[in-house]
Amino acid sequence: MKKKSIGIGLMGLGVVSGQVARVLTEKSAELAEKVGCPLVLRKVKVLAQDLARPQAKEMPVGLLTTDDDAFFNESGIDIMIEAIGGEHPALEYIRRALTGGKHVVTSNKEVIAKHGVELLTLAREHGVGLQYEASVGGGIPLIAPFKHDLVANRINGIFAIINGTTNYILSRMAKEGIDFAAALKQAQELGYAEHNPENDIEGIDARYKLAILASLAFRMQVRPEDIYREGISRLTGRDFRYARELGFAIKLLAIAKQSNDSIEARVHPVFIPQDSFLAKVDGVYNAIQVEGDLVGKVLFMGEGAGAKPTSSAVIADVVSSARKIVLGVGSISLWKADSGKTIRSIDEIETQYYVRLAAKDRPGVLAQIATVFGKNKISISSAIQPESDEKTKTAEIVIMTHPAREKAMQKAIRELEQLETVKEVSNFIRVEDIEGG
Amino acid sequence: MKKKSIGIGLMGLGVVSGQVARVLTEKSAELAEKVGCPLVLRKVKVLAQDLARPQAKEMPVGLLTTDDDAFFNESGIDIMIEAIGGEHPALEYIRRALTGGKHVVTSNKEVIAKHGVELLTLAREHGVGLQYEASVGGGIPLIAPFKHDLVANRINGIFAIINGTTNYILSRMAKEGIDFAAALKQAQELGYAEHNPENDIEGIDARYKLAILASLAFRMQVRPEDIYREGISRLTGRDFRYARELGFAIKLLAIAKQSNDSIEARVHPVFIPQDSFLAKVDGVYNAIQVEGDLVGKVLFMGEGAGAKPTSSAVIADVVSSARKIVLGVGSISLWKADSGKTIRSIDEIETQYYVRLAAKDRPGVLAQIATVFGKNKISISSAIQPESDEKTKTAEIVIMTHPAREKAMQKAIRELEQLETVKEVSNFIRVEDIEGG
Repeated sequence: MKKKSIGIGLMGLGVVSGQVARVLTEKSAELAEKVGCPLVLRKVKVLAQDLARPQAKEMPVGLLTTDDDAFFNESGIDIMIEAIGGEHPALEYIRRALTGGKHVVTSNKEVIAKHGVELLTLAREHGVGLQYEASVGGGIPLIAPFKHDLVANRINGIFAIINGTTNYILSRMAKEGIDFAAALKQAQELGYAEHNPENDIEGIDARYKLAILASLAFRMQVRPEDIYREGISRLTGRDFRYARELGFAIKLLAIAKQSNDSIEARVHPVFIPQDSFLAKVDGVYNAIQVEGDLVGKVLFMGEGAGAKPTSSAVIADVVSSARKIVLGVGSISLWKADSGKTIRSIDEIETQYYVRLAAKDRPGVLAQIATVFGKNKISISSAIQPESDEKTKTAEIVIMTHPAREKAMQKAIRELEQLETVKEVSNFIRVEDIEGG
Repeated sequence: MKKKSIGIGLMGLGVVSGQVARVLTEKSAELAEKVGCPLVLRKVKVLAQDLARPQAKEMPVGLLTTDDDAFFNESGIDIMIEAIGGEHPALEYIRRALTGGKHVVTSNKEVIAKHGVELLTLAREHGVGLQYEASVGGGIPLIAPFKHDLVANRINGIFAIINGTTNYILSRMAKEGIDFAAALKQAQELGYAEHNPENDIEGIDARYKLAILASLAFRMQVRPEDIYREGISRLTGRDFRYARELGFAIKLLAIAKQSNDSIEARVHPVFIPQDSFLAKVDGVYNAIQVEGDLVGKVLFMGEGAGAKPTSSAVIADVVSSARKIVLGVGSISLWKADSGKTIRSIDEIETQYYVRLAAKDRPGVLAQIATVFGKNKISISSAIQPESDEKTKTAEIVIMTHPAREKAMQKAIRELEQLETVKEVSNFIRVEDIEGG
């Protein structure tokens, strides 16, 4: 029997949910035409405290419910949208929706990154779909390209600026020469960083998103805890100055690569060539460069967050689920975690390094340092001593290496720190040699 | 009944077809898993002269046929791939395939731009699909985003670097200060431009692609001949120099915009701000910036041509068609030309202009020129006289205007050319004030 309408249930009433509800109302005619029948918002599951929010006042009173059972037992709902965010109770709600035979659309990166495999299996068992385009990169199409458009490719690499807050902070540091603390404060004042910014600046948010993308691209379960992670708080104005002088930009990148038998996945600050395309992505923009064996390099860029861009992705998923219902096709997920590959430890990666250290300003120091690198089989590509402080008799030394194993590098750094002539290893940053666009 | 396999017929045996055949063979296991059953190449329609090509030698002899009837009557074919290129006989072949109830996947921009509406209608009438992701932007997902990912958006603008040949030439002119003829010659030597480069350098290729994108984005039939077009051959090293000094880059852009009652669509060289993202897209890359009411600006970038990227898009379309066959869903095209909007003539557009002219080097000339602009209600934002030639007593004058109507601008230029003091209007270029990324 042809469906007369598709019923929508909405969980949560934050800014994203409010925007989604607004689009469903304001664009109902266009969406109905695209689906083949109207999309009707039937119920909105809220918390008692949500009732005072401005979004609540926009909605017909009868639509809102604080009662879980009333929401999940509502018979006219075909698709449930989860836009609560955070792990709990979103996870339990999604489970309950899928188990009850409802299609689910979510914008929840944490739930998908941590429980995606379980939830996709649950969806399959109940013959429904679980869609999550909005969980990564706001309205930028990213999940769909991996599932559909790039399906003929073996994905060799993902290089992503995937957290707007940190990219904004790094852009300010690069342009104005200010320190991390000052840039963070500015970002907080402008609403680009949260009062408690840890999730962003420590790379936790980027790690969730990379887990989702890498799992999809490499057909395996890449869990957040499998991904090596470093934040941006130890970067200083000096690092940006030397980076620029050496022809690099500094970005927080989420990186995933595939080789024949293993993959690597990591989130940390990197030096990338100034003329590479990702180096030019400034401010709160997100950009994801994907390398496929056929397509070569493709790049997707846009606003990675915000209610409107996120609603664009949520509604696209709702329309796609609704079309499947109208056509009577069960939503089939073809994703399987079957690649059989292992995840390489950070110790095993090979890359170039930038090392900045403070040493005593006296003859023979550089030779000592070079000896440590040499003993660990790390070749130095350049060593400069841009500054020395007469008073403290301290010289700053900046070293760029040729590709080396992380394990060897870590050992070299520990040994450098033991040298009597080295006051401190001030920073070391990996170099990612992505080509320019 | 569950399909045991999906039969593929391939038309053409150029580099794209050869690559598509190679992918179907080399990746048969992965593709079978994604579709749900194997994709089997059943027949390849070739011309007699194709039989001598290297691609022909790679294929089992029994697969190749020069006979139209043998190809179109082959019963085991479900999906036909057209990769012949050009208008004829590709158009007739696609018609015959659709009429025969075969799904069609094509990379043919000319056929889709000129006959897309007719062919999509034909496909609908016969309950099959017509897919053309590869017709624009090589392997960059562009058709799919408009059809699916951005479906919740009203598309307000498309700004596209969509022809790699011209972008390569303009990049060389900008970087090396060489003239058009020298840059074209280099592009030809490197194989980036054809021996007869007219289709690329006159914007004909870009116009086909914009017709396809604008038709899809605005839900109306935008035919190639509806699109205003100028090529790049009249750009000189001087224009690039002044552009740079004024803070602009010069790109050949395909532009389409939507207002409440009409749309505009045009392909011509433009000044765009140096710090805009599209200004940074150099070489043979394509980049398409889309502006939607919800998603904001999103940008898609990648290699816009070449056998491998194109095969990535062709195979994605084949997989998507094949899945629909396996699931037993008729391919439904929801695209309709129903927006009811009109296409504005170039006379009616409003933009800023750069005008370069040669005038007699004597007092009062600038006042005369300014008077012509003023009479036509065009405000000048800046006027500089960067150079004068003592011998010929000729001054070069560069004028930037505020936004003005094209019609008024054309009239002003004709009047300038009549001035006794103006030797020639050397060039005028529209300015597109797209914001930076």
